[in-house]
Amino acid sequence: MNPNPRFGALGAGATAREGGEAVAILLAEKGVTVERIASRRAASPAGFWYDQPATEFVLLVAGEAGLGFDDGSERRMVAGDWAVLPAHCRHRVAWTSEAALWLAVHLPG
Amino acid sequence: MNPNPRFGALGAGATAREGGEAVAILLAEKGVTVERIASRRAASPAGFWYDQPATEFVLLVAGEAGLGFDDGSERRMVAGDWAVLPAHCRHRVAWTSEAALWLAVHLPG
Repeated sequence: MNPNPRFGALGAGATAREGGEAVAILLAEKGVTVERIASRRAASPAGFWYDQPATEFVLLVAGEAGLGFDDGSERRMVAGDWAVLPAHCRHRVAWTSEAALWLAVHLPG
Repeated sequence: MNPNPRFGALGAGATAREGGEAVAILLAEKGVTVERIASRRAASPAGFWYDQPATEFVLLVAGEAGLGFDDGSERRMVAGDWAVLPAHCRHRVAWTSEAALWLAVHLPG
């Protein structure tokens, strides 16, 4: 058995509208989802929190961004920074630069 | 429940010896392993093939590299390129540049 590999360029076709983000699923298998997220001066809505049932790993590949947490803290991320967001770690996107590019890995629930 | 997030910089402490690679595990949970791999003009041994029981997702974050496959083909990768290597897709690292940096995600078997 030698299934064929797949290839891509992370930034290819990564266009988000001003203030928003665009998600592309690169791989979904065995309960794991690998996503490319393009953000363009994006922020989660005021008062919104991601509260996810499973751990997420995220790498900021390009740009800058701030992740907010419900203790009021904010983590500034620059290209090359990664974060592990455990299940039910409430977080939001506080802000991103114009062309932020993320790789996100959602673990099985 | 609000478990604490963890943060890091992908390139921090990424030093491989000449001709080799250095692997750091960033996350291991639910059968998923997320690794940072630093390569320095590395190549798999002649005749060696990775033949893995589960799918791997790999993103080349910095540098350049060539992935070889057992049909004789080689895929040149530059920073920002990703590959999905299905289970039992035999592959090897043909070559890397001086400071190649990978993010690898191994899916559950």
